[in-house]
Amino acid sequence: MSQTPDSAVRTYIEQHSSAFLEDLAEWLRIPSVSAQPDHAPDVRRSADWLAAELRETGFPTAEVWETAGAPAVYAEWPSDDPEAPTVLVYGHHDVQPAAREDGWDSEPFEPVVRDNRLYARGAADDKGQVFFHTLGVRAHLAATGRTTPAVSLKLLIEGEEESGSPHFRALVEEHAGRLAADAVIVSDTGMWSEDTPTVCTGMRGLAECEIHFFGPDQDIHSGSFGGAVPNPATAAARLVAALHDEHARVAVPGFYDGVVELTDRERELFAELPFDEREWLRTAKSYAARGEAGHTTLERIWARPTAEVNGIGGGYQGPGSKTIIPSSAMVKLSFRMVAGQDPAHIEKVVRDWVATQVPAGIRHEITFGAATRPCLTPLDHPALQSVVRAMGRAFGKPVRFTREGGSGPAADLQEVLDAPVLFLGISVPSDGWHAPNEKVELDLLLKGVETTAYLWGDLARTWRHAP
Amino acid sequence: MSQTPDSAVRTYIEQHSSAFLEDLAEWLRIPSVSAQPDHAPDVRRSADWLAAELRETGFPTAEVWETAGAPAVYAEWPSDDPEAPTVLVYGHHDVQPAAREDGWDSEPFEPVVRDNRLYARGAADDKGQVFFHTLGVRAHLAATGRTTPAVSLKLLIEGEEESGSPHFRALVEEHAGRLAADAVIVSDTGMWSEDTPTVCTGMRGLAECEIHFFGPDQDIHSGSFGGAVPNPATAAARLVAALHDEHARVAVPGFYDGVVELTDRERELFAELPFDEREWLRTAKSYAARGEAGHTTLERIWARPTAEVNGIGGGYQGPGSKTIIPSSAMVKLSFRMVAGQDPAHIEKVVRDWVATQVPAGIRHEITFGAATRPCLTPLDHPALQSVVRAMGRAFGKPVRFTREGGSGPAADLQEVLDAPVLFLGISVPSDGWHAPNEKVELDLLLKGVETTAYLWGDLARTWRHAP
Repeated sequence: MSQTPDSAVRTYIEQHSSAFLEDLAEWLRIPSVSAQPDHAPDVRRSADWLAAELRETGFPTAEVWETAGAPAVYAEWPSDDPEAPTVLVYGHHDVQPAAREDGWDSEPFEPVVRDNRLYARGAADDKGQVFFHTLGVRAHLAATGRTTPAVSLKLLIEGEEESGSPHFRALVEEHAGRLAADAVIVSDTGMWSEDTPTVCTGMRGLAECEIHFFGPDQDIHSGSFGGAVPNPATAAARLVAALHDEHARVAVPGFYDGVVELTDRERELFAELPFDEREWLRTAKSYAARGEAGHTTLERIWARPTAEVNGIGGGYQGPGSKTIIPSSAMVKLSFRMVAGQDPAHIEKVVRDWVATQVPAGIRHEITFGAATRPCLTPLDHPALQSVVRAMGRAFGKPVRFTREGGSGPAADLQEVLDAPVLFLGISVPSDGWHAPNEKVELDLLLKGVETTAYLWGDLARTWRHAP
Repeated sequence: MSQTPDSAVRTYIEQHSSAFLEDLAEWLRIPSVSAQPDHAPDVRRSADWLAAELRETGFPTAEVWETAGAPAVYAEWPSDDPEAPTVLVYGHHDVQPAAREDGWDSEPFEPVVRDNRLYARGAADDKGQVFFHTLGVRAHLAATGRTTPAVSLKLLIEGEEESGSPHFRALVEEHAGRLAADAVIVSDTGMWSEDTPTVCTGMRGLAECEIHFFGPDQDIHSGSFGGAVPNPATAAARLVAALHDEHARVAVPGFYDGVVELTDRERELFAELPFDEREWLRTAKSYAARGEAGHTTLERIWARPTAEVNGIGGGYQGPGSKTIIPSSAMVKLSFRMVAGQDPAHIEKVVRDWVATQVPAGIRHEITFGAATRPCLTPLDHPALQSVVRAMGRAFGKPVRFTREGGSGPAADLQEVLDAPVLFLGISVPSDGWHAPNEKVELDLLLKGVETTAYLWGDLARTWRHAP
């Protein structure tokens, strides 16, 4: 009985999945939280660990690249086919903050498998999705009998994605020569569901700011002074309250400047997806679907810009009460941008608007983190079809199109490297990104491995490098 | 050379002030924070310490009284004059929370004297003001040659004032017989300034609530879900923002029901005080005087009801950013009431209003602490003149009238004991009640001692007990 390439890939994956999962668990044990300075050594340890793992996988080159912040990992494995296209895979090895007491059922940095799911911070976002490329390329080689990949493979795995990738663009610019690629594959997104494999065609951008409001020089007695001086917590609350109008549109003047509106065809494609709002609400662990008037939930999360308060704090938050006017308050806001919006413009209009909202007697300070641009893959790009085919083979189902509400530095790669960006993600909405009990479905993780095992050959067959 | 009673009092105080201050410092070292459960043993220690100190002072009876919460201290020293009036002094031995990192220049529970000021949590609110009664009664006896006070003296020093006195009314009702008095002297207020001694004629009441807002069952990714589900931090902010209308009036329907408005004469009396708004702002450590339209600053803090947010919190408040829609948020609100307002009514109208403000998809829980009623001393009460005279002798200056924006359980004493309530406080606005670097001016503290040394004789001379 002759073995088809697909079954050869599957057999190889089956034989190596245990070791693959053990290695992934080892990586997940490193709490590479880029947002928290005391985890900086862990982020570095994570980079070193990954570089060693990639060398062990077979990449002839695997280096830790320094940035002004956390280190990235770069690896390359050239094809012996001189006309093979070059593909750059993007992912990140840093993770969101996580603590057991946030509501985790097990330690966030002590991976455990329950019900065929691997629970750990970073299991889906993004270590798991970076990691399927390691076994994927080996399955590709094993099944095809090649000694080098059918495409020239490059990996760039950054260490500051969860902190807004503040040094990523500089890193890409610095190494633009070595990073040069015919296409970028981003593995840091999700798909529709376990049953509906999809390819993402765009990501929202992200601009974040933190605003501090300063009132009295210290907390003062709310009986002695209450009602007669401005309260910075009230100022913070009023700013947040003013962020949206009565139609849940962002009320910052100029915020929607340049927004690429959805076409009727795109709205139809969204509407064709098997979307069950009740089910989606369960995934969102939320109790109402509400948002910008005139748009569906999918439009709101994929194709509409938003403003959210991620954190607010001021005054006494401990047990019991403390009758004070607090000295200060703060809010953390994030803005999701869609194609056509410019981060610098958003920062400007937000700064201008905030300045008009803060009452007399309250001083404010606003700081923006590094922004992430929105991006959109051309639906008619030929390489997109390779991804769709590879995924279709792995999943045995038709592949549909989605977008991603989250953000990543894909647009920087597109811009600096002048290469199209494609998205290959196998995470599902219930994976709990940024939340307690983040997990990855083991079956999907292995479908990710399988997809990449097919992808490189498909790309090399259908898309030649134009030297 | 014959010694006048005043100079006898002063001499006695001078001779004993060192020991007096050392004893007070010992008491201030006990962190009797009633709002924090882990300080419950300290609150008890504070009560035991005070009872022992009062026995040492000469009170034949000094007991620790249990409540369902923190213990109070009761002491009595009957006069040998059967027609002497009975005076009940009220104060509290618990203090606000305090931590060095809140902005204290020294440890809050390690009293230090700098520039003739004693810095410690509770120095002014209220241990210092309770304590001047101890040396005061001894100076009264020493200067008059009496062996018992000219009035029958009772002290009730509660242990839960900073937690809203939840068990105070029950305590007063339980012991109403032993507490019976012809007048109540409350030593838990302030005076205008070091140069302008004043007697307070009313306190605002206080109702406090904490509202929790629940959105998603856990923090969720603001990219994946942002813009499509309600955010509980936004709901909390919108509630706080809606608390006041554009005239800075409290926007809760029914909130102003029953408010006793100021008469023109009262507004004139307020306006006659040497009020310097710039100076007041320095004391308030604030940068703008703003509040309810149509009222002066003094009216706003003394005679107008208010709503303040004392604390707000939700989502990620740590370093860096976390792009989440938080699972929950909370606000702590306090409402100051003036004469004519009923705490039960305030609770009802606030609960009703909050329920109308919370959006679909957000669940809320609201809890009210025990309320403190507002109270107002009749301006024409004869005993008020004794206080004014005693204070005038101690300060050598005319005594004016103020009100107090803060709150205390004086109204419960008035109601249960059917006795007029008078206020004798020597704290000044810069003392930093509830704030870091709380202090008491040593000169004023000793004027407080001196005032009480004169007060008991004046009261006994001018106001006889009607058996």
